[in-house]
Amino acid sequence: MNYTIAALPGDGIGPEIMESGLTLLETIGKKFQHEFNVTVYPFGGAGIDETGDPIPPQTIKGCSEADAILLAAIGGPKWENAEKTPEDGLLQLRKTLGLFSNIRPIAVSDSIAHLSPLKTERVKGTDFIVVRELTGGLYFGQPKHWNDEEATDTLFYKKSEIDRIVRQAFDIAMTRSKKLTSVDKANVLASSKLWRKTVNEIATEYPEVTVDHLYVDAASMKIIQNPTAFDVIVTENMFGDILSDEASVITGSLGMLPSGSHAVSGPSLYEPIHGSAPDIAGKNIANPMSMILSVAMMLRQSFQLHEEADALEKAAAEVMDAGFLTADLGGTTTTTAFTEQVKAILEK
Amino acid sequence: MNYTIAALPGDGIGPEIMESGLTLLETIGKKFQHEFNVTVYPFGGAGIDETGDPIPPQTIKGCSEADAILLAAIGGPKWENAEKTPEDGLLQLRKTLGLFSNIRPIAVSDSIAHLSPLKTERVKGTDFIVVRELTGGLYFGQPKHWNDEEATDTLFYKKSEIDRIVRQAFDIAMTRSKKLTSVDKANVLASSKLWRKTVNEIATEYPEVTVDHLYVDAASMKIIQNPTAFDVIVTENMFGDILSDEASVITGSLGMLPSGSHAVSGPSLYEPIHGSAPDIAGKNIANPMSMILSVAMMLRQSFQLHEEADALEKAAAEVMDAGFLTADLGGTTTTTAFTEQVKAILEK
Ligand SMILES: [Mg+2]
Ligand SMILES: [Mg+2]
Repeated sequence: MNYTIAALPGDGIGPEIMESGLTLLETIGKKFQHEFNVTVYPFGGAGIDETGDPIPPQTIKGCSEADAILLAAIGGPKWENAEKTPEDGLLQLRKTLGLFSNIRPIAVSDSIAHLSPLKTERVKGTDFIVVRELTGGLYFGQPKHWNDEEATDTLFYKKSEIDRIVRQAFDIAMTRSKKLTSVDKANVLASSKLWRKTVNEIATEYPEVTVDHLYVDAASMKIIQNPTAFDVIVTENMFGDILSDEASVITGSLGMLPSGSHAVSGPSLYEPIHGSAPDIAGKNIANPMSMILSVAMMLRQSFQLHEEADALEKAAAEVMDAGFLTADLGGTTTTTAFTEQVKAILEK
Repeated sequence: MNYTIAALPGDGIGPEIMESGLTLLETIGKKFQHEFNVTVYPFGGAGIDETGDPIPPQTIKGCSEADAILLAAIGGPKWENAEKTPEDGLLQLRKTLGLFSNIRPIAVSDSIAHLSPLKTERVKGTDFIVVRELTGGLYFGQPKHWNDEEATDTLFYKKSEIDRIVRQAFDIAMTRSKKLTSVDKANVLASSKLWRKTVNEIATEYPEVTVDHLYVDAASMKIIQNPTAFDVIVTENMFGDILSDEASVITGSLGMLPSGSHAVSGPSLYEPIHGSAPDIAGKNIANPMSMILSVAMMLRQSFQLHEEADALEKAAAEVMDAGFLTADLGGTTTTTAFTEQVKAILEK
């Protein structure tokens, strides 16, 4: 098959880890006889430097027409005071593509469980997914204004917005252990009451899925106390922002976490959850795992290439299990050396 | 001196731990020659059972006229479907007394650091305070309504509401290591922009205090990654709800955490952060530490009896260090035996 991919290397360590991801994507293509047509577009700070715009027209066009988008990382002190920042570019891209759902797997493999801030025995075996609503709620609702005397933000949801994200979470739960945790604050928020009602209604269409409801404050506790108890978490935008970041640190390895953002139709966007880490850029020491796992996520979720995704993930895990670890995990393996090791296993 | 105290034992393990707290308060009174006039009032489920109301008129009157209020714990399955629940009673009490600030110390003593879900070396030495705004923000703002099609909540703050809680946090920071972390989401919320501006303005009046700002999602990460870095955290209602609960579990001992809620004037309310634990009620195994530390907090904050508070805290810590631990901490010491040990040390 033929697949068109828009690649946005961005800033800081972005180009280095994107290089790793694209190298291995090409290897997978050869091994399984697919053609991945990758075009690289300027985006973020690199977009500003090249064109004056973090998201120039050719990038919007290329992304909109692609089958999937790979983004590495954007931003840095250089562009912090730009009229339109790299982050503004990302918000515009999400909006243009209608990416309403953000999916973050939180998994702790045995080989890195000791790096977690949590006690190893408590975190070992953690393997869940956070499904976060990405375009509604308190961050976007109107009215939103402030002056020297008072300030107002609005948490607004239409039922249809809740409906589509919750259905996606149920669909994901069906592919896993059929256990869904919905997080809200239904004891005090009107929006959470509608959220909970919608979840309970949709639950009747998925009789095999066990649903439980957790208040957001209780969820923030349980992620620390009992992370292995979760399988799929679904929640609204702001709660998802807080909880997915909280969950990411219990893995002890922010450099290994991918994410995917999806629209009703059109291309999905895959990216590491971490930033551009300007302090270690250009040193060939960044951990490319988050990008490699983002590529695997794309193969699986956008192209249904499950065997290919498995092969890539397995090869990368094998390299780590053999002790080839980048500096963030306490090792000395370089970005390119790690990538070459994975490539060698795939070519065997 | 003479002090009038309203005691609300409430439900579940409430009466048992209140008994412990009042016993030791009396011991402190004798030792330091103060008169603590304690009156017990019906409240919560006990209020419903006794009078049909979780907060009957005599309880409101007694609390309003007291110098301070001690609350143990309320609620339980028995009253979950009551027309007016025990929790409704607590909300009414907070509102009547104008308790706008909630203060939670998060401390991990060396003797219990191993109980934390976090790796011991990471959590050891943790000692910070969360100052949470309690009567404004998203939980109370209007409009707040929902129907089958859409839902709205409103996050509203007047500058004066932000001002008074932030000042209190600065005052607390001045009594500690003069380091204040303000948590907001100023990159997306209008209310957070006013919050941050207000913090920065008040900061000029406290030149000795070092202030930093953290986004709420970053704060949820740092509480796990680097809890010893915090000293005083100040934040709005909802963020404080989530973060204070998250912070409480890193101590590994929810049964040891007190809290205090304060108004502009009038009595403050002191209570454990945990619930009424109906499953272990009446068994004499509840950990009374949260109540004992709530009593110490009252002595210090409402009565300025610092020596007395120190004596009580030190005696309780001594008993724990000697290995007398309740079941929640892996020991076999009963509630009453623990209390008697603390009493014996105070009477020495
Ligand atoms: Mg975030
Ligand atoms: Mg809470």
